Amino acid sequence: MRSTDQILETLCDFLKIPSVSTDPVHTGDVRSAAEFVRAHLAGSGIAGTRLIEAEGHHPLVYGEWLGAEGKPTLLLYGHYDVQPPDPLDEWTTPPFEPAIRGENIYARGACDDKGQTLILLEAVRRLMDRDGRLPVNVRFLIEGEEEVGGEHITSLVESKPDFLKSDAAVICDTEMFAAGMPTLCVGLRGIVYGELTVTGADHDLHSGVYGGAAPNPIMAIAEILTSLKDRDGHILIPGFCDHILPPTEAELQAWRSLPFDEKEYLAKEIGASSLTGEPEFSVIERTWARPTLEVHGIRGGFIGEGAKTVIPARAVAKLSMRLVANQDPAACTRLLQAAVVEACPKGCSAEYRAIHSGAPSIVNTDNEFIAKSAEAMSEVFGRKTVFIRSGGSIPITGLFDLHLGIPSVMMGFGLPDDNLHAPNEKFHLPNLYKGIDAMVRYFELLGA
Amino acid sequence: MRSTDQILETLCDFLKIPSVSTDPVHTGDVRSAAEFVRAHLAGSGIAGTRLIEAEGHHPLVYGEWLGAEGKPTLLLYGHYDVQPPDPLDEWTTPPFEPAIRGENIYARGACDDKGQTLILLEAVRRLMDRDGRLPVNVRFLIEGEEEVGGEHITSLVESKPDFLKSDAAVICDTEMFAAGMPTLCVGLRGIVYGELTVTGADHDLHSGVYGGAAPNPIMAIAEILTSLKDRDGHILIPGFCDHILPPTEAELQAWRSLPFDEKEYLAKEIGASSLTGEPEFSVIERTWARPTLEVHGIRGGFIGEGAKTVIPARAVAKLSMRLVANQDPAACTRLLQAAVVEACPKGCSAEYRAIHSGAPSIVNTDNEFIAKSAEAMSEVFGRKTVFIRSGGSIPITGLFDLHLGIPSVMMGFGLPDDNLHAPNEKFHLPNLYKGIDAMVRYFELLGA
Repeated sequence: MRSTDQILETLCDFLKIPSVSTDPVHTGDVRSAAEFVRAHLAGSGIAGTRLIEAEGHHPLVYGEWLGAEGKPTLLLYGHYDVQPPDPLDEWTTPPFEPAIRGENIYARGACDDKGQTLILLEAVRRLMDRDGRLPVNVRFLIEGEEEVGGEHITSLVESKPDFLKSDAAVICDTEMFAAGMPTLCVGLRGIVYGELTVTGADHDLHSGVYGGAAPNPIMAIAEILTSLKDRDGHILIPGFCDHILPPTEAELQAWRSLPFDEKEYLAKEIGASSLTGEPEFSVIERTWARPTLEVHGIRGGFIGEGAKTVIPARAVAKLSMRLVANQDPAACTRLLQAAVVEACPKGCSAEYRAIHSGAPSIVNTDNEFIAKSAEAMSEVFGRKTVFIRSGGSIPITGLFDLHLGIPSVMMGFGLPDDNLHAPNEKFHLPNLYKGIDAMVRYFELLGA
Repeated sequence: MRSTDQILETLCDFLKIPSVSTDPVHTGDVRSAAEFVRAHLAGSGIAGTRLIEAEGHHPLVYGEWLGAEGKPTLLLYGHYDVQPPDPLDEWTTPPFEPAIRGENIYARGACDDKGQTLILLEAVRRLMDRDGRLPVNVRFLIEGEEEVGGEHITSLVESKPDFLKSDAAVICDTEMFAAGMPTLCVGLRGIVYGELTVTGADHDLHSGVYGGAAPNPIMAIAEILTSLKDRDGHILIPGFCDHILPPTEAELQAWRSLPFDEKEYLAKEIGASSLTGEPEFSVIERTWARPTLEVHGIRGGFIGEGAKTVIPARAVAKLSMRLVANQDPAACTRLLQAAVVEACPKGCSAEYRAIHSGAPSIVNTDNEFIAKSAEAMSEVFGRKTVFIRSGGSIPITGLFDLHLGIPSVMMGFGLPDDNLHAPNEKFHLPNLYKGIDAMVRYFELLGA
């Protein structure tokens, strides 16, 4: 059995690869990370490991072991690509030089999702090393475009190739509700992510000479944003909230029994003076079961040091909607596009272009794959497994359901303060090791 | 007498120096431009040319010729610094490689203000070459911080040194109302320029996990901006518009008689689908005699290619107010600072920090310096000189009035389509040559 030191060294090697999928500069690094995963699988004795290529896309890593006759087949999913590391100057140690402080490892992708992907890889490695076989059949499908919308895996899954035929998917890309609390994620929000471009004059203008008569695209973006969402977090896009399916009373009751301290959440996870959002819903409902509209970045005009008195010709904002049960990404995109045009002040024109999207997903919990996962997690962590939702989006879960007809088991080992998508992302090392234990136990229970 | 070719070559050499005063990278270039001006003055036989230095500031260029006993003394003002050239990719030819197309020369600073500063330099050169003397006394004071608020010249003027004692200032840094129409500018807006910083959480957050509960500083900036100004261009800052002195009925009548075609202005100067601003005022009133609030640039969150689902911890906008008669920059800054705090939504904090400011300025027109300037311009251009205001700000005019007790004669030779502060800035070469003729004639009339 590989020691924790060996596993940690492997994780460090994985984390050193800057596989930022959204940035063309890192295309070669993304491929290196894919090759890293493939080599790990091959080293475990997984058969037919290969990179599945598609023009203009990062490769998918595939590998299979199908020697457990009569036993279920699991589709094991993770992703080897990471978010961009900026703002770089807010990292304590560089994002691609993994650093261990206390019980945590700090690096971009430590938790999301290299650390968690490694749980799948190392669980299979341990069983193969120990037994020379697995108690269940597995197909690995590890992608490199999760952070940029997953077009490649989507088109693969949509084509339903025979080689993906499985009984359930296991996804390692979510969080525990709290440290030490084994957690299955059974619901995710959907997403539409895109760019809002606003154009005013056909060239930049001197703000002294023209200020008071010329349209200002940055101001127009401000007008549009405040038309789309009010100060209480209500989304004002006409028709947007019409078909939302609220959580059941049983779910709400279960959520209310979770150990959630709003003050601690505000202080430790958010670090702001107060929370925001729809006051008539609890924080858990707001982040798990209510849609949001967020602006992620904005650029326009002069942003250098000092002063430039210009009215810019153009401004661009990155804008997303998170969607909940029954909201359709395509329909919501059309509603947003219409609302943006409607809200644009005179003198400017506005256009919203979606970059990627994914449907919300609610997992059916009434099957042995969920039940045995919960059992394995409870055993290893010594505590009852809780069922939660997540406010994030893993579009692939909806696609596994729709096209492959299989449930997704989301076994997550991240922690709420792991700084996903932010500087100083970390992974709690005990969760890495217990995660592997839990995954091994899960395979054993399913194969018994 | 120097030929137009010689003058043009000198202008090209001047324009090749990237004297961007706001960018520390160009500190050396700014000094080179100062030295260029000093050398030109020395070459004309101006005495005591020197750079006036101050720690942390770009030099002022000084020189004097005081041999016209009993004649008036003029303080000749221009500036050798320029605005940043970005966005670079919108220039047809590079901003610091002057290019002549048709009757225009294209370069950053062509009009604002190297071309116009050269009018002062070359007028004096011509008279000295021709007569070995000037008909009036002159003191040159050419600054290198006009585009960044002019702190250095401000503190010099405030200290009222004897060597600045003059009877009137002549400023070459404004525009003609229309091509071929000799123009004196007799009113300028003031300015307060600064940065609005909004902070939310103490670190960037994953928009999926926290969207719906976490404060978003970009959204907060949108809320603040729309609280400060409505869609019709009315500034909503409490108390901000209370003391504005409107133009006189005579001024309004004169403005109405100016040849102004709103459709042409929209199509040729702005290039947008419609104008904006307070509908109850004319375009000329809106840009000359009404205050504005403009956002010049904004940055926050992820602005790279592709997608990053982050709620940023912080966002910054460059924000200015243009002020009109009777509005005090310090008082207006305080009002804006309070309004920004008041408008900031919960969960975020907002702060406005002024970078530079300048008072509005209305010139007294009842003196021989204005009258003879109008006469000289009418003679050279063959048409009656018109009196206009400008929406821009030249804070030094107010300071000359306040501290030196002298009127400012703003003889401007820019054209409305010269793209000041924007890509493809240009200067109309016939205005350069006629401007020198007019300046020579002005000195002759004053010294007669």
